[in-house]
Amino acid sequence: MTLLRSHLSGTWQTGSGEGRPLYDAVTGEEVARICSDGLDLAGALEYGRRTGGPALRELTFHQRAALLKALGQHLREHREQLYAVSARTGATLGDSKFDVDGGIGVLLAYASKAKRELPNDTIHVEGDVEPLGRGGTFLGQHVLTPLHGVAVQVNAFNFPVWGPLEKLAPAFLAGVPTLIKPASPTAFLTAELAELIIGSGLLPEGSVQFVAGSLGDTFDHLTGQDLVSFTGSASTAQTLRSHPGIVRNSVRFSAEADSLNLAALGPDAAPGTAEFDLFVTTLTTEMTVKAGQKCTAIRRAFVPRAHVDVVVEAVTARLARVVVGAPGAEGVGMGALASLNQREEVRRSVKALRDAGRIVFGDPDRVEVTGADADRGAFVSPLLLVGDPDRAEPHEVEAFGPVATVLPYDTTGQLVDLAARGRGSLAGSVVSADPAFVREVVLGVAPFHGRVHVLNARDAGESTGHGSPLPQLVHGGPGRAGGGEEMGGVRGVFHHMQRTAVQADPDSLAAITGRWVAGAQRHTSDVHPFRKHLEELRPGDCLVAGPRRVMQADVEHFAEFTGDTFYAHMDEAAAAANPLFGQRVAHGYLVVSLAAGLFVDPDPGPVLANFGVDGLRFLTPVRFDDELTVTLTCKQLTPRESAGYGEVRWDADVTRQDGESVARYDVLTLVAKRDAR
Amino acid sequence: MTLLRSHLSGTWQTGSGEGRPLYDAVTGEEVARICSDGLDLAGALEYGRRTGGPALRELTFHQRAALLKALGQHLREHREQLYAVSARTGATLGDSKFDVDGGIGVLLAYASKAKRELPNDTIHVEGDVEPLGRGGTFLGQHVLTPLHGVAVQVNAFNFPVWGPLEKLAPAFLAGVPTLIKPASPTAFLTAELAELIIGSGLLPEGSVQFVAGSLGDTFDHLTGQDLVSFTGSASTAQTLRSHPGIVRNSVRFSAEADSLNLAALGPDAAPGTAEFDLFVTTLTTEMTVKAGQKCTAIRRAFVPRAHVDVVVEAVTARLARVVVGAPGAEGVGMGALASLNQREEVRRSVKALRDAGRIVFGDPDRVEVTGADADRGAFVSPLLLVGDPDRAEPHEVEAFGPVATVLPYDTTGQLVDLAARGRGSLAGSVVSADPAFVREVVLGVAPFHGRVHVLNARDAGESTGHGSPLPQLVHGGPGRAGGGEEMGGVRGVFHHMQRTAVQADPDSLAAITGRWVAGAQRHTSDVHPFRKHLEELRPGDCLVAGPRRVMQADVEHFAEFTGDTFYAHMDEAAAAANPLFGQRVAHGYLVVSLAAGLFVDPDPGPVLANFGVDGLRFLTPVRFDDELTVTLTCKQLTPRESAGYGEVRWDADVTRQDGESVARYDVLTLVAKRDAR
Repeated sequence: MTLLRSHLSGTWQTGSGEGRPLYDAVTGEEVARICSDGLDLAGALEYGRRTGGPALRELTFHQRAALLKALGQHLREHREQLYAVSARTGATLGDSKFDVDGGIGVLLAYASKAKRELPNDTIHVEGDVEPLGRGGTFLGQHVLTPLHGVAVQVNAFNFPVWGPLEKLAPAFLAGVPTLIKPASPTAFLTAELAELIIGSGLLPEGSVQFVAGSLGDTFDHLTGQDLVSFTGSASTAQTLRSHPGIVRNSVRFSAEADSLNLAALGPDAAPGTAEFDLFVTTLTTEMTVKAGQKCTAIRRAFVPRAHVDVVVEAVTARLARVVVGAPGAEGVGMGALASLNQREEVRRSVKALRDAGRIVFGDPDRVEVTGADADRGAFVSPLLLVGDPDRAEPHEVEAFGPVATVLPYDTTGQLVDLAARGRGSLAGSVVSADPAFVREVVLGVAPFHGRVHVLNARDAGESTGHGSPLPQLVHGGPGRAGGGEEMGGVRGVFHHMQRTAVQADPDSLAAITGRWVAGAQRHTSDVHPFRKHLEELRPGDCLVAGPRRVMQADVEHFAEFTGDTFYAHMDEAAAAANPLFGQRVAHGYLVVSLAAGLFVDPDPGPVLANFGVDGLRFLTPVRFDDELTVTLTCKQLTPRESAGYGEVRWDADVTRQDGESVARYDVLTLVAKRDAR
Repeated sequence: MTLLRSHLSGTWQTGSGEGRPLYDAVTGEEVARICSDGLDLAGALEYGRRTGGPALRELTFHQRAALLKALGQHLREHREQLYAVSARTGATLGDSKFDVDGGIGVLLAYASKAKRELPNDTIHVEGDVEPLGRGGTFLGQHVLTPLHGVAVQVNAFNFPVWGPLEKLAPAFLAGVPTLIKPASPTAFLTAELAELIIGSGLLPEGSVQFVAGSLGDTFDHLTGQDLVSFTGSASTAQTLRSHPGIVRNSVRFSAEADSLNLAALGPDAAPGTAEFDLFVTTLTTEMTVKAGQKCTAIRRAFVPRAHVDVVVEAVTARLARVVVGAPGAEGVGMGALASLNQREEVRRSVKALRDAGRIVFGDPDRVEVTGADADRGAFVSPLLLVGDPDRAEPHEVEAFGPVATVLPYDTTGQLVDLAARGRGSLAGSVVSADPAFVREVVLGVAPFHGRVHVLNARDAGESTGHGSPLPQLVHGGPGRAGGGEEMGGVRGVFHHMQRTAVQADPDSLAAITGRWVAGAQRHTSDVHPFRKHLEELRPGDCLVAGPRRVMQADVEHFAEFTGDTFYAHMDEAAAAANPLFGQRVAHGYLVVSLAAGLFVDPDPGPVLANFGVDGLRFLTPVRFDDELTVTLTCKQLTPRESAGYGEVRWDADVTRQDGESVARYDVLTLVAKRDAR
């Protein structure tokens, strides 16, 4: 049997020795062997730092996003290959899609989010400029730069494709190379993924490495610039978190651990309501998808005491229809656990749960299996229990398989207290159409949860379900769930970057960030900035136009023309009584309209459109006969990688005759490239 | 000698036993004794969770901010009391102000920031709504809620007032109670602070507790809802970080450890330039303020090789003028170290540094002392070394006193590489007026720094200096510096809260967040929403107004009136050639002006002003004869605690005759309270 290959320091290699056998979860046959003995993992870390890191850091966020997108498309083209291998992990086709298509979806979603929410630049400028002195000569600005280390992934066995990809996408976008380490039982599927990724040739050399086998002494070689993100059991998380290599260097360590996730049925969701049915379906689905091997799966199903029996009856009826067996065999709805060891683990945990409850569906030691040998495959029956919510076990013992416990509750306050006894969870669902109940429960359990999902007839049609982490949203929970936070859109990218507070004068800050900031030098010239193409514009390019006097007649005319006859503009006595004005003032919308009239260059040119305005503030009222001047300064350029134009953000500062700013805002335009493709 | 008192579980109490003596750093006299033996620290944690937490969580951010402000004012009134005790820690009056006034400043800055940047609510809604389905019935939103635990502070000896306050402010604002543990050598000053805080009676019961002495078994009783923030040595940080009580429960642990901070002189800053003088002054100041006992103090002074001698000469000349002695004695510019133990520690470290360099100013074993007995007080001379940058010691050995090493460099690239050898620092200064050099160094060292300070003639007048962490900016650095992040404005508040991704239908989401979101129910009534006072308005209150037809004549009139004759509005052929429009379109500013004309209620009433517009996007061009309708919906209310009005944010959705949105934005108004005070 062949050893799985590792890709380290730019070459495919295998460990020395015979390796440990990995088994088909359905047939029990050996699939491959795994071993990393003798591989130079310290060298691989250094290779990532010296080769992959610099290559990634040369690219902008948008360029990295384009590579992620191409990788996602490449994997999508080869997904059948992954499905085939995935079946040998015990996964049904539905399970495989959850894993494979889910992972590809994360790449594509991140590619798209990066283009919309990150600059086309190598650094991220975060938040507003902080004025640190009254004179405006000393400013603060937070800047995020990529860490110079390697993101070491320690993956769980249950999502051999999604897991590595959801960790890769944000690291890659951040400019940080990755070392993928799969969990052994399903490593042969992640190895297939790694062959596809590296074989695609799409990604910069050294930006993704893969080790099949143990990490050996890797942690001894970590520096404060490396990161470790772990998914798996709470106990392994503890061991890794306290490793001297992590502790010594304050290595960023993110853990996402199994937790006792809940679903709560609202008192409004009586039998016969749509929500009741949704609860029953969700619970059944969460128990059987991936044979319940999801760290987000529902373990605790809280039900109003009066509805416990009818919930059990309905769930039992559905579970009875679930066919267990070989993926692909006729009618099979639930596959095998990942390994026989896992089945033993589930049986042990169910034994503990039975101390605090009773099984109302299934037998941990017996299951009817379709299309496979029940003795050789890692099959187990779905198991539903009814438990005593006052006991510790239902809140603390996790059976990592198709197992859930129904727990009765009496009041909303009690429900919230019981939820907290899980000591921190990844995900919870509240199934109810009653906004007051939903508010109380969601905010009550939020401090203990990374994600809370509200399900009812209004959102069921579009809900992505209890168990699905989404790239847009954070994944991870406090306490028992590991305390980590992954994804969450660009947040996940920033976790791989160093936030640095920069304090500087405006010109230095502009040089550092590549953006014009208030107080930095402006450049005026004979050429109107609207006549410059994207490549010709520079932050600081500037136009001063005006003055234009605002007459009472202008205000009255504008009021009549637009219909905006608000008293502050039109009624002398009422305006005088207004605590902010004291007399009639011009419309804010008139001020910005006149400012545009001053700064616009009317002739056809590279400026294609003004597509928006940000952060408009009317700072000082404009009174009759005030004279307005506008200073328009190019602030930030965002060329689009695959379009003939880019976005240009301008600072607009409208001042009156005494120099006081009356309005300040960002004008957003699209400006054509000179060499538009 | 009396034992310092602790304030735990609502009462002042002292440990059992005689306690350990604490000494005056100047005279060597015993000041007080410290002991926490027999105190119920597990009970104190639980008291904080059961009493302080719920009391704080009932308050809004703005209400907590008002209490912080009152506390800051109270401490300011009593600061002389703190200065007097501070002198016994070896601090000069300047040092004491740095510590005491700095700490008070953090409270006041946080109070002010919270009112401006956080809602007047008990939860924080973070980021935009994430649409999770095409139909808009399933939305994602991140929500931050206060953790239900206690923020345990483990403070350093060098900032006995600032340290506890900079940790307290963000925790308190977040709604999380605090347990303050001072470092023993200067605990008598923090005890004085605690007496003032608790004696003020301003803060909710249980929101601040204080333990004089060791934390005993506190860590064994931590839960996943508690937090620990540590400031001190890197080795203690490691011990605490790997404590089983931290690791087991994924307790949020933030460390801020001493680091080898740098200052770099630019090649442009030759002798005779303002920057050269700034470098010399900054280095001298950083060496002597707090007798160099600042975790941000400059330890590595990088100088272009050609300027090393002249820098040494200039710094030496200044150091020679520094009078060391008793705080308050004639001419004294530098006080004592915090303890004789610290002096031994400094001497040990200097010995190691001498292996890689030579002392060019000062003698570690001898110093002339004014106004005190050099044998009894913890005095040491300022010590300047010139070191070999290729050796490890200057980058790794920290002498926590008035000690710095000058290190030559040849190229900017080499400088950036040498900076990284510190393995992570809190703060660095770049002294240069050359924007290109500044950009290269700042971005080069940023991944290894929490804060980088650019100093030159342009910002020196307002610079707050190399060594001062500011509440607006993050404090903490990667790797050796501990990997923690404190303050940073509202970021520091959020570190004490749980971020939860909420997935829900719009109505549930609106109920949870207290804000109207797109897709949630709107309420129209006969009463125009502009006629409602702040207390009468509800999120979802709505007005639909229109239609108004936009005629070609309107566009041409607006162009002429405002002067905005941009080709897309006026030039048929040029507009047709524009890739986005294809024909003449109305001005965006005309659209929003007409929309205001539709939604404004003109008569005097509770609406005082439209003070701004956020996130305006022109989504679809408006063509001639299009008919516009505007839907204005109350989105969010922010009553001001101490004013007769509040801010109301409205969603404005301008649609054309086919229902398509042409413009979308937030309108910001000030609305009077009915019962205005």
